[in-house]
Amino acid sequence: MSKNPESVSLCPLNSAAATEPEPLCIFGTGDLGRSLGQRLLQSGYRVVYGSRKPHSCGPLPPGTQAMSHSAAAQSAALVFICIHREHYNFLETLAPQLQGKVLVDVSNNLKKNLYPEANAEYLQRLVPGAHVVKAFNTLSAWTLQNGPSDANRQVYLCGNSAEAKQAVAETATKLGFTVLDRGSLCAARELEDFPLQLFPEWRLPLRIAVGLTAFFYFYLLIRIVIYTYVQKGDDISFRIMVSLANKVFPIVSLIMLSLCYLPGVIAAFLQLYRGTKYRRFPDWLDRWMLCRKQLGLLALAFAFLHKHPVVLFIKIKENKTSAFDSALAWRSDSFLSTGILGFGLYVLLGITSLPSVSNALSWREFSFVQSKLGYLTLFFCTLHTYLYGWNKFLKPTSYPWYTLPGYLLCLIVPTVVLVLKFLLLLPCMDRSLTRIRQGWDRTNKVDDGEKSLLA
Amino acid sequence: MSKNPESVSLCPLNSAAATEPEPLCIFGTGDLGRSLGQRLLQSGYRVVYGSRKPHSCGPLPPGTQAMSHSAAAQSAALVFICIHREHYNFLETLAPQLQGKVLVDVSNNLKKNLYPEANAEYLQRLVPGAHVVKAFNTLSAWTLQNGPSDANRQVYLCGNSAEAKQAVAETATKLGFTVLDRGSLCAARELEDFPLQLFPEWRLPLRIAVGLTAFFYFYLLIRIVIYTYVQKGDDISFRIMVSLANKVFPIVSLIMLSLCYLPGVIAAFLQLYRGTKYRRFPDWLDRWMLCRKQLGLLALAFAFLHKHPVVLFIKIKENKTSAFDSALAWRSDSFLSTGILGFGLYVLLGITSLPSVSNALSWREFSFVQSKLGYLTLFFCTLHTYLYGWNKFLKPTSYPWYTLPGYLLCLIVPTVVLVLKFLLLLPCMDRSLTRIRQGWDRTNKVDDGEKSLLA
Amino acid sequence: MSKNPESVSLCPLNSAAATEPEPLCIFGTGDLGRSLGQRLLQSGYRVVYGSRKPHSCGPLPPGTQAMSHSAAAQSAALVFICIHREHYNFLETLAPQLQGKVLVDVSNNLKKNLYPEANAEYLQRLVPGAHVVKAFNTLSAWTLQNGPSDANRQVYLCGNSAEAKQAVAETATKLGFTVLDRGSLCAARELEDFPLQLFPEWRLPLRIAVGLTAFFYFYLLIRIVIYTYVQKGDDISFRIMVSLANKVFPIVSLIMLSLCYLPGVIAAFLQLYRGTKYRRFPDWLDRWMLCRKQLGLLALAFAFLHKHPVVLFIKIKENKTSAFDSALAWRSDSFLSTGILGFGLYVLLGITSLPSVSNALSWREFSFVQSKLGYLTLFFCTLHTYLYGWNKFLKPTSYPWYTLPGYLLCLIVPTVVLVLKFLLLLPCMDRSLTRIRQGWDRTNKVDDGEKSLLA
Repeated sequence: MSKNPESVSLCPLNSAAATEPEPLCIFGTGDLGRSLGQRLLQSGYRVVYGSRKPHSCGPLPPGTQAMSHSAAAQSAALVFICIHREHYNFLETLAPQLQGKVLVDVSNNLKKNLYPEANAEYLQRLVPGAHVVKAFNTLSAWTLQNGPSDANRQVYLCGNSAEAKQAVAETATKLGFTVLDRGSLCAARELEDFPLQLFPEWRLPLRIAVGLTAFFYFYLLIRIVIYTYVQKGDDISFRIMVSLANKVFPIVSLIMLSLCYLPGVIAAFLQLYRGTKYRRFPDWLDRWMLCRKQLGLLALAFAFLHKHPVVLFIKIKENKTSAFDSALAWRSDSFLSTGILGFGLYVLLGITSLPSVSNALSWREFSFVQSKLGYLTLFFCTLHTYLYGWNKFLKPTSYPWYTLPGYLLCLIVPTVVLVLKFLLLLPCMDRSLTRIRQGWDRTNKVDDGEKSLLA
Repeated sequence: MSKNPESVSLCPLNSAAATEPEPLCIFGTGDLGRSLGQRLLQSGYRVVYGSRKPHSCGPLPPGTQAMSHSAAAQSAALVFICIHREHYNFLETLAPQLQGKVLVDVSNNLKKNLYPEANAEYLQRLVPGAHVVKAFNTLSAWTLQNGPSDANRQVYLCGNSAEAKQAVAETATKLGFTVLDRGSLCAARELEDFPLQLFPEWRLPLRIAVGLTAFFYFYLLIRIVIYTYVQKGDDISFRIMVSLANKVFPIVSLIMLSLCYLPGVIAAFLQLYRGTKYRRFPDWLDRWMLCRKQLGLLALAFAFLHKHPVVLFIKIKENKTSAFDSALAWRSDSFLSTGILGFGLYVLLGITSLPSVSNALSWREFSFVQSKLGYLTLFFCTLHTYLYGWNKFLKPTSYPWYTLPGYLLCLIVPTVVLVLKFLLLLPCMDRSLTRIRQGWDRTNKVDDGEKSLLA
Repeated sequence: MSKNPESVSLCPLNSAAATEPEPLCIFGTGDLGRSLGQRLLQSGYRVVYGSRKPHSCGPLPPGTQAMSHSAAAQSAALVFICIHREHYNFLETLAPQLQGKVLVDVSNNLKKNLYPEANAEYLQRLVPGAHVVKAFNTLSAWTLQNGPSDANRQVYLCGNSAEAKQAVAETATKLGFTVLDRGSLCAARELEDFPLQLFPEWRLPLRIAVGLTAFFYFYLLIRIVIYTYVQKGDDISFRIMVSLANKVFPIVSLIMLSLCYLPGVIAAFLQLYRGTKYRRFPDWLDRWMLCRKQLGLLALAFAFLHKHPVVLFIKIKENKTSAFDSALAWRSDSFLSTGILGFGLYVLLGITSLPSVSNALSWREFSFVQSKLGYLTLFFCTLHTYLYGWNKFLKPTSYPWYTLPGYLLCLIVPTVVLVLKFLLLLPCMDRSLTRIRQGWDRTNKVDDGEKSLLA
């Protein structure tokens, strides 16, 4: 094909690839090297291994050959480095042969911050004449051997040379992966840390959730089970399993939902107080704001457990209301409908948090859902809890051992958030805040000739 | 690195970027200009501001410098225009300095259709010698300053020069964004309208949902609450909150689900009547067909509220069937199982509407789910409603004030849709329709030598 | 624009596209050709049709012109082949005119394996001097005519020439599609099979689900309905609809969930027995492992039906426990809470299976959720079933006609899986398995100098 050199619009540059497979080199005949080699073979490449002992390096994929490192390096433009970082140092002696080559660093470490610099940066320092590209390290060995599955279609890469990245990207595409360029080699550390991470942004929210759950479980255990046992001698310890859990779940859910909106309100008051938006927030507030999504999703999980039909069924069975009373019916029906509405909005918030849904929304739409609908959800859920309590707080039996009922404790945070948010919506506050967010600065007067643009 | 000029396969074009940061220019020292500058600095760029008053332009990010517009323009190949459109006209005088530069228009307007042409097109007209690229305008100021978050990873860009777009795309990638090319500068208006939109395709379905809900709420309020009060003197107004809502939700849900399939059936009959598929549908039908997905998802939301366990619980409690009757048990169990099956299929339809799921389906799979399973869902839900009604329509008490029961009203549309669909499935109809959809035309006989291809 | 030839950084290569639209050629005036032509026109291209009878080829989109094949081919660099494969042979005579052109093969077949080679490969063989690109064939005709909708944004393409693919990709991008490169022309067959497929990876799991459901339905029908009728003369056939279904759903759900984890356990024991991971698994095990995700999702669907509130309500109503008993209360509450926890984890597993969610997880996170949380889910659900059974297996009434109760039958597979998994977690087993998975081989001793890298 492409026998016509006069073709103007499209010069046949790499159509030769179809006739004879391009050779690729792999340094290292270990497990990863062999997996990668097999996969490259299947995608139509020619594979050459570089090894210290080319004649005794164990079983290699059939169709490949092993040779010395320097011979292997000279046969290909792309060299995959499938060696542990600890053995990188011998590559320094191969610098002349690796001059101008693309070195693909696929290595990972066993722990974070084991070395002062990223493996790929270390490699670049050892062989400054080569173009180092960090790639493929976020994939599992299984994926490398068997090709992309549902979970792992994406190959992240970074490097200083755009051409080198392009060459690696083409290889990755031929293997069936989707390529995401993460910029220069400075990003290598981030890529090397990626496979080691285990839900880092979920840690704080999970700790909060576990802490709150443990506290309220213990608190209600004392108030209900132990109090009953001490005062009346009844053993209702079986209630721990379902009935108590169902008192704890909605409490934790509501508190976590309000914790999700509290930092935004605090940030707004901080900006109003400082009169500018150009000063950084304290670190704890920044960290808090970054885990709002996770707080919200955990709150939704607790709401989901609370809403479970079996749990509701048992709850309803317990609240037998014998005599009919219109006011009571209104209260009880309002209690139910605010709960249903609140939960419905909750689920909607959860759905718009799915990556593919939030990507499809414009920024205005996303902020409308997450902010406006979010506060509405909080409002309904808080109202639901107030209606649950109603006049129970007047009865002396609600205070065994002088402890407050759980629902009263859990209403504190959401009520504070809603009151503060209401204050921020007052015209005078709202106007000041809008001006500050548009770039107005109480201390530095901004040049008004070139007004700022606002999204 | 890349000291080897003989490197054949990969010429070191932009590897210089690693040693010395590339300078970028920003016109405008307002809020957006400063946010963008700070972000570019963090990603390793050198930033130069162009300003009318370089010496009194307020606080700039540390490490940047401000100079006159013309001096700034000459120092960089890429110029971000962070100025309001109203102040663009002075750029005309800078045309010589901006010749051949890439101008990135990041502006948005406060309203749609404020100006006859898009801001980017206006800019291109003012500086015809530059390469205008529309980009970054769909991001919020927060995202620009803090980098990509979950919601906003995507930068849309458009422009007439592929090289200019490539240069902007590289910058966006270095900032950590994913780039989506939307074609030539004609797409600028669409991109400028994007941040202003607030669920445009949801408006019509939402209006229909609100209208139907209001109508049936009012209708059932009269039939049930007011009628009971007038005739028997009982105040059952508390029923508004849950019991009435739970009569309205399934009614609206079923009607909206059938409205989702009605346009397809109408379109098929229109094609059969016209004998061709090459004439456009009326505008109202086109608009209706485009919002079917939203109609379906709203119908699902209403079904979800209807299915809520609390609501069901109350409903079941109300229908106490004292004496056991085998026929009644069959009816009631069929009623439940059709409802469960219908709701299960409903949820399946909703899940396949998620962007990431529908992207993973082939066209044949998507149409199988949305069409075949969709009609099955409609069939089960309609059957569920018929089983609910059963022989109630025979009793005189079902017609207070000569009004029809709600479930009878809501059965009209789905029954019509199912009957029409059944007619379309008859062999003679199906054959004609298939031929028409394969390109056959009753009026124009198509050249049969080159037969059309069918997906 | 781009009047400045001295512009260094960005040479104005294709900015001419903005002034005069590029001509594209379409061979074939059938339905697909016309749809495609109309869409190309709307995106600003000039369209020329190549036809056998240019003067009598039926209605073409206004603004296009039809000419002979050879004249049309010469006017454009890109030629869309909208002809049935059966008529491809005449293209051989046009080889000189198509030399160096990009031929876009958009064809599909009506069945798989109809021809020995893919249509695009056949085309390349007929016109070896052209650059054949397979593209657009995965879109429906509706999408091609009306532009990308939610379901179909992605255009897959493959071909041997990177330039030709680039040219087609640019056209697809201008039409508003997202392009996914699938490598060389060898992938054409896969792309041609894609639109014909209908959930291929769901077939085996669906068959298993249907088989299990049918078996247990029939089994329980005999045990409960027919036995009751024969022994006591009671007709409880109405129970088929809901009550029986709700015994079958959880049974099938638990068996399918354990079938989802069984192959992993078998594979581990096979590796331990063989002492190496370098030998392929038997084919049936490979196929089983590839459909684990689908097995799990079907199990979730059955769990979802089982958990349906109406079903639970009826179940709870049936189990009236009159006298209060603390041990019984503990058992019943543990039964409920393990069920709720199991279902909650189940749903979490389902959510992380959504493509957009699993793409956002690192490999370690994904395997943590799918493996650790997966076994926890299986454990809770199995415990839930054991608590359901409790001491029922001691009562003689549980064995009508000497048949085992359904819940005992369904506990076999999950118990086996959990016991085997427990064995694998024993330190001695775990250590051996880890060594094997790190590349250790009992038969071939690997060169230890270059140790393998592990993700």
